[in-house]
Amino acid sequence: MTLDIIIQAEPIALGPPSCEGEGAVVRFDGRVRGEEKGRPIRALIYEAYQPMAVRQMTTILHELGKSHPCLSVRVRHRIGEIAVGETAIVVEATALHRAEAFALVTAFMDRLKQDVPIWKMRAIPREL
Amino acid sequence: MTLDIIIQAEPIALGPPSCEGEGAVVRFDGRVRGEEKGRPIRALIYEAYQPMAVRQMTTILHELGKSHPCLSVRVRHRIGEIAVGETAIVVEATALHRAEAFALVTAFMDRLKQDVPIWKMRAIPREL
Repeated sequence: MTLDIIIQAEPIALGPPSCEGEGAVVRFDGRVRGEEKGRPIRALIYEAYQPMAVRQMTTILHELGKSHPCLSVRVRHRIGEIAVGETAIVVEATALHRAEAFALVTAFMDRLKQDVPIWKMRAIPREL
Repeated sequence: MTLDIIIQAEPIALGPPSCEGEGAVVRFDGRVRGEEKGRPIRALIYEAYQPMAVRQMTTILHELGKSHPCLSVRVRHRIGEIAVGETAIVVEATALHRAEAFALVTAFMDRLKQDVPIWKMRAIPREL
């Protein structure tokens, strides 16, 4: 299973994966919504402890790959100020069949929130 | 929940969805794999009974939307000859939160295979 994980300040632009015999491509894009804890916002600021975050994501993906064998996984996580409507994270898995790819992406998103040092540092209210 | 369903002979090219406040975009691309029933192929030929297929997909999506409320769903299904590596189907759902979007796309794929008159008419072996 090939992994390609990048934490970046630039907007995420991830084209389609190259074809390596997979039958299924599952992709999740997480975008910043217009409110945070019930209040309207115009942006979120994400921070990460980068070396550890990439290391943790790699460990989690190798672990999940044992139960849900995929061909490739690409992760892009943006940090810094991310405006409402923009993409904060993309997780994409390719696999021979769709079940493995869906299972890996959903399980990864759960683990990411718990175990990876990337956090919403601050929400910028819409009024400011 | 807005629906946008197209059955088409042309290659599928579906750009990102416009932002309508959703936090999650889940997309599944199903591609033609290099073998069918254990034999190497170079293409699959899909056929559909089009008016009924679109009607059925609409009904299924409205039904699934009750348990898994999403903001929008786009479906593209290609028919005719589809070469190995090319995309036969794309299903994309947007929702406020990712759980609903994942649930709707996976449930839709299961129902599609059972209940929608689109079928693999023939596989073209690689030798020919």
